[in-house]
Amino acid sequence: MTKFTVSAGEMDAIALGGAFLGTGGGGDPHIGKLMAKAAIAEHGPVDVIDVGDVSDDALCVPVAMMGAPTVMVEKLPRGDEANEALRQLETFLGRKADALICIEAGGLNSTIPFAVAAATGLPLVDGDGMGRAFPELQMVSFTMHGIAATPMVIADEKGNSSVINTISNQWTERIARAQTVEMGGAALVALYPMSGAQMKKGILRNTLSFVREVGETIEAERKAHRNPVEALTARLGGRRLFTGRVVDIERRTTGGFARGKATLKGMDADVGHTFSVEFQNEFLIARDDAGNTLATTPDLICALDADGGLPVTTEQLRFGLAVSFVGVPSDPQWRTEAGLGLVGPGYFGYDQAFVPVESIEAVT
Amino acid sequence: MTKFTVSAGEMDAIALGGAFLGTGGGGDPHIGKLMAKAAIAEHGPVDVIDVGDVSDDALCVPVAMMGAPTVMVEKLPRGDEANEALRQLETFLGRKADALICIEAGGLNSTIPFAVAAATGLPLVDGDGMGRAFPELQMVSFTMHGIAATPMVIADEKGNSSVINTISNQWTERIARAQTVEMGGAALVALYPMSGAQMKKGILRNTLSFVREVGETIEAERKAHRNPVEALTARLGGRRLFTGRVVDIERRTTGGFARGKATLKGMDADVGHTFSVEFQNEFLIARDDAGNTLATTPDLICALDADGGLPVTTEQLRFGLAVSFVGVPSDPQWRTEAGLGLVGPGYFGYDQAFVPVESIEAVT
Repeated sequence: MTKFTVSAGEMDAIALGGAFLGTGGGGDPHIGKLMAKAAIAEHGPVDVIDVGDVSDDALCVPVAMMGAPTVMVEKLPRGDEANEALRQLETFLGRKADALICIEAGGLNSTIPFAVAAATGLPLVDGDGMGRAFPELQMVSFTMHGIAATPMVIADEKGNSSVINTISNQWTERIARAQTVEMGGAALVALYPMSGAQMKKGILRNTLSFVREVGETIEAERKAHRNPVEALTARLGGRRLFTGRVVDIERRTTGGFARGKATLKGMDADVGHTFSVEFQNEFLIARDDAGNTLATTPDLICALDADGGLPVTTEQLRFGLAVSFVGVPSDPQWRTEAGLGLVGPGYFGYDQAFVPVESIEAVT
Repeated sequence: MTKFTVSAGEMDAIALGGAFLGTGGGGDPHIGKLMAKAAIAEHGPVDVIDVGDVSDDALCVPVAMMGAPTVMVEKLPRGDEANEALRQLETFLGRKADALICIEAGGLNSTIPFAVAAATGLPLVDGDGMGRAFPELQMVSFTMHGIAATPMVIADEKGNSSVINTISNQWTERIARAQTVEMGGAALVALYPMSGAQMKKGILRNTLSFVREVGETIEAERKAHRNPVEALTARLGGRRLFTGRVVDIERRTTGGFARGKATLKGMDADVGHTFSVEFQNEFLIARDDAGNTLATTPDLICALDADGGLPVTTEQLRFGLAVSFVGVPSDPQWRTEAGLGLVGPGYFGYDQAFVPVESIEAVT
């Protein structure tokens, strides 16, 4: 039973919403949108189905791009690597997939699965494994529900690939990341093959609908010549963190990740303050000049161009850009002990406890 | 038809011969010997068969350890990873192997295939892919005969593994090396699956017999209280390069390889001269203090303890050790344009042409 159908026209909203919820990571929304639109134009629209409509013995497979967003912007997928990764995984498993899944929200990873769904004729399940984007492969709700990332296939645009089997999802991350780096910093993957029954336990539900809705909100506000910050914070139960102009940006692509820190001078209500945001593919922590933490992983730190209102990815941050940052509560699963162990501030090396963004006092 | 049978007793000579022809690399002969002896004790002796006795449609598979010898000394295989790599490759290919192959001569890689052969009951073919050891995966005669390294399985002692498929053997090296590093610097591999017909074209013939013979020569000379240098140079058409005492040794384990340089002060006939040998897992080039090259890859630069006459691996080189170096002509295939492109001095970054060791004038 189809919940909704996605034609080329809807991909704009989905790419926008994915880029916003991708918290700075998840890849360039433009490339992913083009790939999905081209596939839909060739093969027809994509059916999104409800989690509850998938049979327990169905084979469900997330497909995604893996790597540093800085690389993905310059090293475009050839186009069929994700299909190839899926095909190889099906061959290894000896059965065909029945449904596809988005592993995360993000400019590329909310859109590439639509391209694969269009090309294969498979439906996409309305849900994902994060409700946002995270930088490492094991950082999905599936890990918390005991679902193995392997067998996993990784494929590059040159024609190289591997079928990986590991003893834990952390080992999958290590081994797949090393290959991603060797493959040039980005690769396409099919992983976490799971039954419908496992999927129903592990997936975060209705997040594709939500990605589309967020994108539509951004579109509607921009059409009305309003910056979407207010409408989004109201809709998402989030809060505006600050608005500032980038005055310094440090970047390094190491270990297969885009890491760095941006410093921003406050604007508007935030004039006179300085802010920083640190990232590993995704924004991890936002602080003010008094040393206060404004928001921290796993809560979402989302960026919008202060002028145009479009989502800003970490690799788009550049000197002089005016950006509004918004904090959004993460899915409750990420705020549990298990969730914080996987993606809390401590995992990323920050010596501080997680405080929910809605309970942090406003600075200004 | 069995050419010869190898019981536990013969493994001493094979490990010795492998360590000598391994030109400093190929792993610790002691560990490999123990693994092979244990497997033979449990499962019975191993049959070595002649290349010509393998049917053209047989499936022949080399099994080996991959990684930095410095790591292999401290990170011992659990014991069944090589069997596991073979088993997974068989599953991927959908058929059982008919014969095993040694990829190279070396302390570990001349002995681990015997352990797998004993455990699986498969025969070993009398030949290998190098007639010595080389550091990188594509550096085998099989590459020169158009045989693909993949599908290849790589497995670690923890239970992680991958099936790799690549567009070239150079890409196999890159992707497998990255995984080896991530797996802790050493892993077990089953690769270059080939038909009997391909094997007959690509393999260097009778090198297992030769490894054993070299080992027996070392044993006999040591028993007669002679250093084996003279007997070996006579038997191998090689020449003594120099004898010296290690006065300096630089090492670094980078990119998954043990790299470095040893400086030696001449002894005996070589007193008054200083020599250097450089290595990447294996010895690559030997020079004297006048800047003359004494021997260079792909010719074999083999080391023997000047006192005891036992083969010396690069990781055994230490301050004060007295070592005799011997140069041995490599297989003629390595001296062709294709061979030198794969393993000549230029590939390793040395700005000099290859000169056959037998045509280089003695220094002293």
